[in-house]
Amino acid sequence: MPREYQTFPLGDFELQQGATLRGAVLAYTTYGALNDDRSNAVVYPTWYSGRHWENEWLIGEGMALDPARYFVIVPNMLGNGLSSSPSNTPPPYDGPSFPRVTFYDQVRAQHALVADHFGIEKLVAVTGWSMGAAQTFQWAVSYPEMVPKILPFCGSARTSEHNIVFLEAVKAAITTDAAYSGGRYERQPDQGLRAAARVYAGWGFSQAFYWQQLYREMGYSSLEDFLVGFWEGFFLDGRDANNLLAMLWTWQNGNVGNTPGFGGDHEAALASITAQAIVLPAEKDLYFPPEDEEYEVSFMPNAELRVIPGVWGHFAGGGENATDTAFIDAALKELLAD
Amino acid sequence: MPREYQTFPLGDFELQQGATLRGAVLAYTTYGALNDDRSNAVVYPTWYSGRHWENEWLIGEGMALDPARYFVIVPNMLGNGLSSSPSNTPPPYDGPSFPRVTFYDQVRAQHALVADHFGIEKLVAVTGWSMGAAQTFQWAVSYPEMVPKILPFCGSARTSEHNIVFLEAVKAAITTDAAYSGGRYERQPDQGLRAAARVYAGWGFSQAFYWQQLYREMGYSSLEDFLVGFWEGFFLDGRDANNLLAMLWTWQNGNVGNTPGFGGDHEAALASITAQAIVLPAEKDLYFPPEDEEYEVSFMPNAELRVIPGVWGHFAGGGENATDTAFIDAALKELLAD
Repeated sequence: MPREYQTFPLGDFELQQGATLRGAVLAYTTYGALNDDRSNAVVYPTWYSGRHWENEWLIGEGMALDPARYFVIVPNMLGNGLSSSPSNTPPPYDGPSFPRVTFYDQVRAQHALVADHFGIEKLVAVTGWSMGAAQTFQWAVSYPEMVPKILPFCGSARTSEHNIVFLEAVKAAITTDAAYSGGRYERQPDQGLRAAARVYAGWGFSQAFYWQQLYREMGYSSLEDFLVGFWEGFFLDGRDANNLLAMLWTWQNGNVGNTPGFGGDHEAALASITAQAIVLPAEKDLYFPPEDEEYEVSFMPNAELRVIPGVWGHFAGGGENATDTAFIDAALKELLAD
Repeated sequence: MPREYQTFPLGDFELQQGATLRGAVLAYTTYGALNDDRSNAVVYPTWYSGRHWENEWLIGEGMALDPARYFVIVPNMLGNGLSSSPSNTPPPYDGPSFPRVTFYDQVRAQHALVADHFGIEKLVAVTGWSMGAAQTFQWAVSYPEMVPKILPFCGSARTSEHNIVFLEAVKAAITTDAAYSGGRYERQPDQGLRAAARVYAGWGFSQAFYWQQLYREMGYSSLEDFLVGFWEGFFLDGRDANNLLAMLWTWQNGNVGNTPGFGGDHEAALASITAQAIVLPAEKDLYFPPEDEEYEVSFMPNAELRVIPGVWGHFAGGGENATDTAFIDAALKELLAD
C-alpha cells in the first residue's frame, strides 16, 4: 500500500503538561470507506516509532479489520515524525524542546479527528499494539460513550516500573552518543541509535525466541545479521533521535489514572472502562508480562484476559509471524462479532 | 573483612585463543586454613566485575562455607582488575589490546594456583554465581578427577544467544561514549558506564521485583535512587571500561564444549561431568532462565536442578536478600554433607 497520508490540523493544541503546540497536525491514513451513518469506524493507533504503514499487517480482506466492512483510521502518534514531532516542528518547540505529550493528549488529538473531522459519534472499536494498546486503554477511559469495544495487545494502561527501567536504557544509549549533542544534532546520532537497537533487541523477543533462533524464519542468517539487519536497520529507518525520546517520555509516563477526574488513580480509571475488552498480553513479553495485564484486567468490569501463546515475546504483536497474527485477528473477529 | 589479597605468578600464560599473557598474575584470597592432608579446599570464583570481597556474603561462621571447617579459595577472574587485566597489564597487551580469555583459561589459571601453589590434589567442591557458575561448570569439565561436587548458581555452562544479545547492549552502551575512545582513554568513560548500568538494571532484577519496589528493602528511596545509587554506583565503583569489555568477551564466548577434546560439543562436555551437582537457577532470572539450566542438567549424569524461588531474578545469587542467601546456603550445606 502507498505511504500516503492526510493531515488534520489540530490548531493550537494545549497539552496536559501545560505547553501549547501551535499549529499542531495529526497525520493519519484510513482504510475502507466510512458508511453513511458513520457507524463502521475502528481506530487503530500506532506504536513506539511506528508509522501507519507499519500497522497494515493487521488490515486486509478476510481479516477482522477488513476494509470492505470497516473504516479503519490509523492516526500516527504525535512524536512519530509524521504527526507533529520534534523533527518537524518549527522553533521554539523543535527538537529536544518539543513539549511533553501524554497518552491523554494523544487520544484527545485523535478524538478531534474522529469527532470533528469525520463526525463520528461512536466507534466500533479501538485496538492497538504496545503504545497503541496504551492509547486503546486511554480511549476507553477518556471517551467511554464512544468506545464500546477494545482490544489492546501487548501493552498496558499504566507503564510499569520495570518497563520504565528498560526505556531508561534506550534513552541512555541514544543520549550517550556525543553526536546527540543535547538533541541539537545536524545528523542523526547513528551510533546511539545502533546502541539503542542492541538494547531493544534483548527485550523485543523472548529468551526462547533466541534459543530457537527464530530470526532465521524472518530471513536472518545469524544472530549478528539479525542485530544489524533487523534491529539496527529498524532504528535507522527514518527514525529520529529526538522523536524517539519524545515518544519514550510519553511511554514512560503512561498511566490512565492521570486522566482528568481520576487524580492519578490507575485502578479507578481501569474500573471506569465500560467497553467490552479482550486484553491480549503475549506469554513471553519481557516488558509487558502477562501478570501485569492480569492485574489490570482484574479491575475492568467487562474484560477478558487472553494470553497469546508462544515464544515471540513482545513482537508477537508486531505482525512478524502468521501464527500470532492469526491469534490476534481471531480475537478481534470474535470481539467485533459479539 | 580486609580487602587484602595475594598474588600467584602464572608466568608466561598461554591462552586458548593464541596470545601469551607474559608475567600474568592471579589475585586471590583465602578464608580458613588448609588442613594437613589438604582435603578441605573449596574454590569459589568471582563473577562479572566482582572482586573477592564481593563473594564474602556466602562465607562465614555457621554457613556452608564456614572458614572453621573449609579452606575457601576465591580467585579473582582474569580481567577483573586485580588479577591480570586490561587495566594493570603493561603494553603491548594493555587496555583494549588485552588478549581474549576463555573460561577454560580462567580455570586453568586457578588450577595452577590450587595444584601448584597449594599442592591440592582434590577439592571438596566448586561453587559460584553467574560467571562464577560458568567457571564452576568449567572446573568440572576441565578437572573431573579434582572436582567431586559443584554448585553453580544463576549461571550456565554455555552462554545463550539471548544472553549474548543482552551483553551486546552493555558493550554498546560503554563504547558509544566518545570518551571510551577505542579503549585508549585517560579517564573512565563515565557516561558510557552509567548507560551500561541502566542497561543492566532491567536485566539484573525481575519485572516483579520492580513491580513490588523491593529496592526499598535494599535502602533505596525511589526507582531513580536505585538506578543512580545502586546501579550507577556499582559501575563506577572502581570498575574499568576495558576490564568490563574483556570479561564481557569471556562471558559471551562461554561454552564448556570448547574445552580441548570436545570439539565445541556442549552437550558432550556436560555429559562428561562426573561431579555430583546441584544446579540452582533463579525462578525469574532474565538472562539465565531456569529452562536453560533444565536443559543443561538433562545432560549431566549426576545433577539435580533446584530453582531458587522468588522475584529477585539474577540477583537472587548476589547476596542481596537473606531468603535467597539462606536457600543457596542450605543447598550448599546439603551438597557438602552428602
